[in-house]
Amino acid sequence: MQETVVTRRPTLEELHLSGGKKTRLRRLLYQAGPANGTLLFLPYDHGIEHGPVDFLSNPESADPAYLFRLAIEGRFSGIVTHFAVAQRYYPEFAGKVPLIVKINGKTAIPPDDEAFSPLTGTVEDAVRLGADAIGYTLYTGSPSQDRDIPQLSEVRREAERLGMPLIVWSYPRGRAVEEKGGRESLYAVDYAARMALELGADVVKINLPKPHKESSKHPDQYAELEGERFEMTRRVVASAQRCLVLFSGGSYKDDESFIKDVEMGMRAGAVGLIAGRNMWQRPRAEALPVIEKVHALLDSFAAPES
Amino acid sequence: MQETVVTRRPTLEELHLSGGKKTRLRRLLYQAGPANGTLLFLPYDHGIEHGPVDFLSNPESADPAYLFRLAIEGRFSGIVTHFAVAQRYYPEFAGKVPLIVKINGKTAIPPDDEAFSPLTGTVEDAVRLGADAIGYTLYTGSPSQDRDIPQLSEVRREAERLGMPLIVWSYPRGRAVEEKGGRESLYAVDYAARMALELGADVVKINLPKPHKESSKHPDQYAELEGERFEMTRRVVASAQRCLVLFSGGSYKDDESFIKDVEMGMRAGAVGLIAGRNMWQRPRAEALPVIEKVHALLDSFAAPES
Amino acid sequence: MQETVVTRRPTLEELHLSGGKKTRLRRLLYQAGPANGTLLFLPYDHGIEHGPVDFLSNPESADPAYLFRLAIEGRFSGIVTHFAVAQRYYPEFAGKVPLIVKINGKTAIPPDDEAFSPLTGTVEDAVRLGADAIGYTLYTGSPSQDRDIPQLSEVRREAERLGMPLIVWSYPRGRAVEEKGGRESLYAVDYAARMALELGADVVKINLPKPHKESSKHPDQYAELEGERFEMTRRVVASAQRCLVLFSGGSYKDDESFIKDVEMGMRAGAVGLIAGRNMWQRPRAEALPVIEKVHALLDSFAAPES
Amino acid sequence: MQETVVTRRPTLEELHLSGGKKTRLRRLLYQAGPANGTLLFLPYDHGIEHGPVDFLSNPESADPAYLFRLAIEGRFSGIVTHFAVAQRYYPEFAGKVPLIVKINGKTAIPPDDEAFSPLTGTVEDAVRLGADAIGYTLYTGSPSQDRDIPQLSEVRREAERLGMPLIVWSYPRGRAVEEKGGRESLYAVDYAARMALELGADVVKINLPKPHKESSKHPDQYAELEGERFEMTRRVVASAQRCLVLFSGGSYKDDESFIKDVEMGMRAGAVGLIAGRNMWQRPRAEALPVIEKVHALLDSFAAPES
Amino acid sequence: MQETVVTRRPTLEELHLSGGKKTRLRRLLYQAGPANGTLLFLPYDHGIEHGPVDFLSNPESADPAYLFRLAIEGRFSGIVTHFAVAQRYYPEFAGKVPLIVKINGKTAIPPDDEAFSPLTGTVEDAVRLGADAIGYTLYTGSPSQDRDIPQLSEVRREAERLGMPLIVWSYPRGRAVEEKGGRESLYAVDYAARMALELGADVVKINLPKPHKESSKHPDQYAELEGERFEMTRRVVASAQRCLVLFSGGSYKDDESFIKDVEMGMRAGAVGLIAGRNMWQRPRAEALPVIEKVHALLDSFAAPES
Repeated sequence: MQETVVTRRPTLEELHLSGGKKTRLRRLLYQAGPANGTLLFLPYDHGIEHGPVDFLSNPESADPAYLFRLAIEGRFSGIVTHFAVAQRYYPEFAGKVPLIVKINGKTAIPPDDEAFSPLTGTVEDAVRLGADAIGYTLYTGSPSQDRDIPQLSEVRREAERLGMPLIVWSYPRGRAVEEKGGRESLYAVDYAARMALELGADVVKINLPKPHKESSKHPDQYAELEGERFEMTRRVVASAQRCLVLFSGGSYKDDESFIKDVEMGMRAGAVGLIAGRNMWQRPRAEALPVIEKVHALLDSFAAPES
Repeated sequence: MQETVVTRRPTLEELHLSGGKKTRLRRLLYQAGPANGTLLFLPYDHGIEHGPVDFLSNPESADPAYLFRLAIEGRFSGIVTHFAVAQRYYPEFAGKVPLIVKINGKTAIPPDDEAFSPLTGTVEDAVRLGADAIGYTLYTGSPSQDRDIPQLSEVRREAERLGMPLIVWSYPRGRAVEEKGGRESLYAVDYAARMALELGADVVKINLPKPHKESSKHPDQYAELEGERFEMTRRVVASAQRCLVLFSGGSYKDDESFIKDVEMGMRAGAVGLIAGRNMWQRPRAEALPVIEKVHALLDSFAAPES
Repeated sequence: MQETVVTRRPTLEELHLSGGKKTRLRRLLYQAGPANGTLLFLPYDHGIEHGPVDFLSNPESADPAYLFRLAIEGRFSGIVTHFAVAQRYYPEFAGKVPLIVKINGKTAIPPDDEAFSPLTGTVEDAVRLGADAIGYTLYTGSPSQDRDIPQLSEVRREAERLGMPLIVWSYPRGRAVEEKGGRESLYAVDYAARMALELGADVVKINLPKPHKESSKHPDQYAELEGERFEMTRRVVASAQRCLVLFSGGSYKDDESFIKDVEMGMRAGAVGLIAGRNMWQRPRAEALPVIEKVHALLDSFAAPES
Repeated sequence: MQETVVTRRPTLEELHLSGGKKTRLRRLLYQAGPANGTLLFLPYDHGIEHGPVDFLSNPESADPAYLFRLAIEGRFSGIVTHFAVAQRYYPEFAGKVPLIVKINGKTAIPPDDEAFSPLTGTVEDAVRLGADAIGYTLYTGSPSQDRDIPQLSEVRREAERLGMPLIVWSYPRGRAVEEKGGRESLYAVDYAARMALELGADVVKINLPKPHKESSKHPDQYAELEGERFEMTRRVVASAQRCLVLFSGGSYKDDESFIKDVEMGMRAGAVGLIAGRNMWQRPRAEALPVIEKVHALLDSFAAPES
Repeated sequence: MQETVVTRRPTLEELHLSGGKKTRLRRLLYQAGPANGTLLFLPYDHGIEHGPVDFLSNPESADPAYLFRLAIEGRFSGIVTHFAVAQRYYPEFAGKVPLIVKINGKTAIPPDDEAFSPLTGTVEDAVRLGADAIGYTLYTGSPSQDRDIPQLSEVRREAERLGMPLIVWSYPRGRAVEEKGGRESLYAVDYAARMALELGADVVKINLPKPHKESSKHPDQYAELEGERFEMTRRVVASAQRCLVLFSGGSYKDDESFIKDVEMGMRAGAVGLIAGRNMWQRPRAEALPVIEKVHALLDSFAAPES
């Protein structure tokens, strides 16, 4: 059965990284979290991206300190926050869990038709806090790409100057994306994966592709490619080429389907996952067993350090 | 009865402030105004934000010198003005009452659909005048957030560089906010409180939340949370986490309901209030007794210096 | 008897200060320390200027935290340290005693023939830490004045830009000074006092003038002016004009002569003193009574707030 | 017997570090090398400071790759090189051993009378390579201090801006130092230790003090303090206060006296040592057993992570 | 017989070069001149370094166009000139022979006691002209090292930013060098070779070492190493480690000894030579046969492209 195939991931050497990017990425891959060449990140940028509504189901999650403790206890490869939250809370946990600083963000209040995520920090801010990578949200396909692409390119240049790995959250968004099959379509996610490679991401976070929404503008070629989920997933990983791929944990769902999705992503060649709401939208006592299951799964995809 | 609960406020230590921010914030909390760990600010940015219409009911209030004298006499923790007013009037009162310089502002003349508040000064201007904090107005949810967020982030960085506490007036505004339940809804105020934390405010000023305007786009989860006023207030303070919360005095209303609101805010975990129009839209002789009542109330929420 | 005369000191108004300088200087004069219009500073730059040899007689004094506590307990107007000591220790005491950051310094190891004090920090560093003034050491008469004068002028400009009071330690130094009567001669100290005014000091620290060392190059006119100590002291204060004068406590001597010197300086028009070694080169229990005597004396020179 | 006393070292908390400095210093102290709160650095800046003459006794040591491998195999807390050597060799070892970039240096060819060490790199260079700290050589007491002190102060400021721990090699040097008792005298080393604290070092490297060279200019007070080696050592550590102290391994000597010196330094309150020539001026097979002895010794001085 | 040994040269991969440096260096090594992994440069910076005196023996050599033609005809890997000569003459020959721009230089008129070579151009100037590398002269051991080292470090940084290979002419010079055995001594040349590695040269040009001048300050260890010329040569190449070594052709001498020196250098591990005066201080017709002999010799040291 085809699903037993495991796609080879790029090695650190193949990424042709500078000293600083390599040092930091090796730290994330081999000296923190699973420490086996896979990545497990805990994202916590929802206060900006979704607002406090995301914290309602588990009120403790409104407290950043709870999240930092969860990241340490759950042996995550890193925690992802915006600069100011890290500045106020990270000093207590400095060095106990790697920090990834998200440097752009926007609220969910205005519509997404022309989605664009403005800067909330700088690469230098992230270096000053001792972060090991920076995160940037790119809205592939948005009419605002004429501001987004140069903004990312400038961030990419700063990240090179300071040796910081660049993780791009590459999300299809905007009016035209919706018209051409939707943000979750294979066409859109595939394009988003490739954009990250083309614009300089060292790591890209994408969502699992799904069948497209009915539309006459959806590209024909992709219609035939849709179908088997694993093949779709493998395709988007392949489009990222020498860019390490992370899949999203998505919104909170049952644990079994979550773990199954993680496993499919890893077989498809992903290096790991970013899973937040599955982790902190329920009590800590419920979250920890799931985290352990993810660790066990990631162990089975360990890659030896080169 | 639940209302006797008083929510603990963050300590100065928990804010992880640099030397300069800590020095200045301690001065505001313990060496000026109530000097008991609470804050009572006199705002006077209305000449820009509302225009001279606000001064009609008490013509003396058009004179900034009157306001500076009122701030001193009423033992306020500080007076809040735009740069140029401070530059022209503060030298006479320098050091007699702390100064907070508001560094962005806009008139009330165009509609608020895409509200955005441009800079009227810099953090450095405020330092040069001897201010102890700067103020910034963020319009959470405005379509102009793509200009507002990076502008605030730049101000945040300058404030760090110069050790100036950053007070964010976080106001939900714009077309989408109104469509989703309105600027006073719990949903909107809660989001605004959180945005201040996420973007680096040391202190946030918000308004007391109210029931939402009827709208199909209002988030369902918030509908059930609305109701009891104290609980709503407590929720928005909680969303700000390690960011000190100030409530607005709002427009001039009867003294009893004003004092009652202040008390509810303080019990909910606020560190104090910003009250202008209640103070200077009536004769000085009427204002002073109310100010004294507020002082007495704040004394009952005193927090010992750490 | 002439000694009962007390020379009038310049008022804050007469200094024509910007808002920031005035705010901070008023704080030093009226809201900290004696808080009566006089100044009592505790200097602690000796680790650079003299080396740890100064700490031998009271080993506790090697610990900056001891000094900060002494400054608070002894109700000093401020403590004076170099930037890095303040950065490492002030956060614990932020706002509990004003901070003055000395921004240049040099070791005592090489000879003083061409004395020059290079920068150890910037005015901006001092602002970031929440300091209320900066200190600069000018070596009046040194052959290195061609580097010293422009360096001070640049610092003066930065201090203006940021509204920071500038305190100049004006010390006659160098080969030529020694040839013309020595660093303690009236001629030299008088020149040093005037240089501070001319180069933009808001406050100048000088030493009490003494008779000159025999030298054919000593200016004749000064020979006749030397003699009565009070008159000499009054002269150097007069040369500083609208620049507030601080006298040095000098090295550790008997308390009676120390207090007598302080009193003479104050009568001569000084605004206060900077006394370190008299304070921390002996056990705390011995120091506190002397500090109290100084407070009592300064109270007798109180000036009402304008 | 007095020598059983072990002086308490400052905790990370007491250093009041920013997030980035704390993250990186914690990594050096607890996640690399001995990983027990002590430090063991392998210095390799000799190619500039002494020239290839230092490599003659063990020709393999001319090869930086040999040194990087030795640092990894010997479980050092970090390896110290100039920028360009790290840039050319570190990519192969990136993340396998922490990197400290020395950012100034000079050859040993001209005389040391006015010793000054110019910049070979920048803090930003070091960040780009993924270094965890930067090193700076300060020549305390040199007539060139007027260039050295501001150069270090500028480096200190950059290190703060980028959250990089600053390690200062504080060496007494120059004509005046030799006249006042010599570079190894207690007076000189004590001054050097203090200068590092005063100028912003997070960690200082000094040499063990020795009796002074005969000189009439040697400060009297220090003559009586000289004598018992442990007491001398304790004194210089005490002068550094909240600056972590490293002692030098010095030039290659017999292992027994080397280990004894290390032990004395640790008892005196040092956090660890920088030992190069003892390590790489002999065959690897001879070096490793000594390194293991040092590890065993450092283990006995372990400090729990706060 | 030992002389048959050929020392392995570092590969391009081992240099850990960025894309631009690698592209340009590969072009010099494999697509121009011998195009076999060796380098043969024609230097023409003598107009500054020695003055027109060097052109007297072959007046045509005063004409830069003659030199560019000779470089093309003789299939050199590149021609080395200062910026302005290249700007005025290279357009005619652009792309026909690679250009190396020397970016610092000085006349031979003042004595060399404190030798220092100021900038005549920038890395960007060189890029603008289409150069494939830049050249910098470092005077190892000069008392002016405090200006030379940071100047080179700044050039190194610019060369990285623009992806330009950096060739350092590393010459021992100055008073102290002469006192310690002279500029041609093994001690001095060895130090110079190492300095180039330590300061970031991709390629270093040194002279063949010779016995030292009698001096009591000459380091003892080197005395014994002197002797056999090949061993001395091998040693200095070894000190440069992963920095490619070029030897100088030196002043015009008989062809046989010149070729023999080249051969010895190549066997010792050099990548090629820079030979000017041997080439253009005689008529073209005489020069070309010698050039062909050098080509034949270099072919015997060809290294396959990795």
